[in-house]
Amino acid sequence: MSPPPFDREDRLIDWLRRRSGQQPGGSPIGDDAAILPAGGPFAITVDHQIAGIHFPPGLDPSVVARRLLAVNLSDLAAMGATPAYAFLALAAPPGFDHRRFFTALLAGCRRHEITLAGGDLARNPERLTASLTLFGTKPEGARWLHRSGAIPGHALWLGGTIGESAAGRMLIERSELKEAIPSLQKAIRRAIRRHLEPRPQLALGLWLGTQREGAAMDVSDGLARDLHRLCKASGAGAEIDAGALPFSERFTKLCAAVGADPLALALGGGEDYVLLFTLPEGIEPPEEQARRIGKIVKGKRVTLLREGSRSLLPDQGWDHLAAS
Amino acid sequence: MSPPPFDREDRLIDWLRRRSGQQPGGSPIGDDAAILPAGGPFAITVDHQIAGIHFPPGLDPSVVARRLLAVNLSDLAAMGATPAYAFLALAAPPGFDHRRFFTALLAGCRRHEITLAGGDLARNPERLTASLTLFGTKPEGARWLHRSGAIPGHALWLGGTIGESAAGRMLIERSELKEAIPSLQKAIRRAIRRHLEPRPQLALGLWLGTQREGAAMDVSDGLARDLHRLCKASGAGAEIDAGALPFSERFTKLCAAVGADPLALALGGGEDYVLLFTLPEGIEPPEEQARRIGKIVKGKRVTLLREGSRSLLPDQGWDHLAAS
Repeated sequence: MSPPPFDREDRLIDWLRRRSGQQPGGSPIGDDAAILPAGGPFAITVDHQIAGIHFPPGLDPSVVARRLLAVNLSDLAAMGATPAYAFLALAAPPGFDHRRFFTALLAGCRRHEITLAGGDLARNPERLTASLTLFGTKPEGARWLHRSGAIPGHALWLGGTIGESAAGRMLIERSELKEAIPSLQKAIRRAIRRHLEPRPQLALGLWLGTQREGAAMDVSDGLARDLHRLCKASGAGAEIDAGALPFSERFTKLCAAVGADPLALALGGGEDYVLLFTLPEGIEPPEEQARRIGKIVKGKRVTLLREGSRSLLPDQGWDHLAAS
Repeated sequence: MSPPPFDREDRLIDWLRRRSGQQPGGSPIGDDAAILPAGGPFAITVDHQIAGIHFPPGLDPSVVARRLLAVNLSDLAAMGATPAYAFLALAAPPGFDHRRFFTALLAGCRRHEITLAGGDLARNPERLTASLTLFGTKPEGARWLHRSGAIPGHALWLGGTIGESAAGRMLIERSELKEAIPSLQKAIRRAIRRHLEPRPQLALGLWLGTQREGAAMDVSDGLARDLHRLCKASGAGAEIDAGALPFSERFTKLCAAVGADPLALALGGGEDYVLLFTLPEGIEPPEEQARRIGKIVKGKRVTLLREGSRSLLPDQGWDHLAAS
């Protein structure tokens, strides 16, 4: 039998303090604020996970915790940072299994050598809302990555396959699709896992930080929108080749089975959490899944080459303020 | 006519970047994470404000922004820290006036010389949820304040009046009370303002950091519960004198008019955001409103002297996990 949910905040905090006290220097939890030693510079990111907005309601709290950590780690990967400290703001409905959530969160923190240093707990009657503030440090001799570092002539790269996360979201939302294609159960499970538990490309980000040139960001709101952001920040344009976009074979089969357009999911789906980055021509990243998808050009135009013809790529994707 | 709400996240971010770009070094907003220069040590705190939980639904977004900043600043005050950087996670329902919220938040940041350095925006259909991560630095030659610094023999102090915030919350929730006592309109407005826009005791916290001894925390969950926390952290007990608790005259009159017990509101109400601290006997803080309310004693007992008799003070107050 699982232990009962925490009925008092102080009991949960005591439990957390014991669990997090294994880290060097003991637990920083206990005062009105946590003290971090002098250090830095730091890269700092904040990202939400809200039930029914960023993930389906009723998701296992341990999956929510891993997703929350992963999407924030992906931002640090995009900066070339090594994760160091985390602060959590968690507002949960009655009966939420805090123990399950924190066990997974602390396990993820240990795996990445992150200290969970503080946070705030509250009630939110309808839905779980969580936000994590994550600190990263810069490895010695490396540089921070910025969106603004793209230079005309640079090759444009993606760190891994895209579109599959959006397919996973579609399959979660339209469960009748899942049952319609029994032959693709493994591909379906992969797409859903890709959506729910993204794998931040921290090693790739650290390698990019050792390179003298190049821009980087993570693809969270769809390749089209995020590429526009990178180009705008860099004062440059880009040309990408639809034929070069990396799709997994299981993803294209899945799209065919459910009648989805892989290119549309890749360009506008979002939540891929792979790195989009530029490098001088001739330099290849050490990430096997990375693919060169085009190049940075002068001007402001972002264009897509598809079936021999080139067209403007609209600045479209996932918008956090727009109604769904 | 007020401008329309932001319909796209990128437009809001552009507007924010322009508004926050007045700070030295320009705006840190724009990459996947913000870069903070090497520095510290830092005191870091996170606090929520959720509509219908921490403040009444429908509250003016500028008041929400000021309250969010104030409750976090109060945590830094309790550490003896000078505020430096802020990161925001904001999830708002459709039609929320982001411009009004951010105008007030940025004004508050300017007043306290805080750089709003980053954040994340999302939708939350039912209710506004906001959390702020705030960084403070330690003034040279000063020390951090901790809950664990109370020593038997220390005098126990409160930085200002308590209970009025809880009365303000009661008056908001039971609006019929407001109309029943027309003669006390000014006191009612004061109590409501005290609840909605607390004034963090930053100057007092900084002064306490210059003292060699003493514990500190802010009273957010009621004096009874927070005093138990301070005693537990310090491995000590406390004796307080009900007659010494600082109430404003308008507050006691208000309680009489609505039939509330000022002592119950003071001990269990919460959200006072004044500092609770200890000092060696004979040292007086420079804060005019501060009152000596008792002393730290050996053992674990926390007792209340009331009308000549001493009784155990139960560890009760506002619990963030308990159902309301």
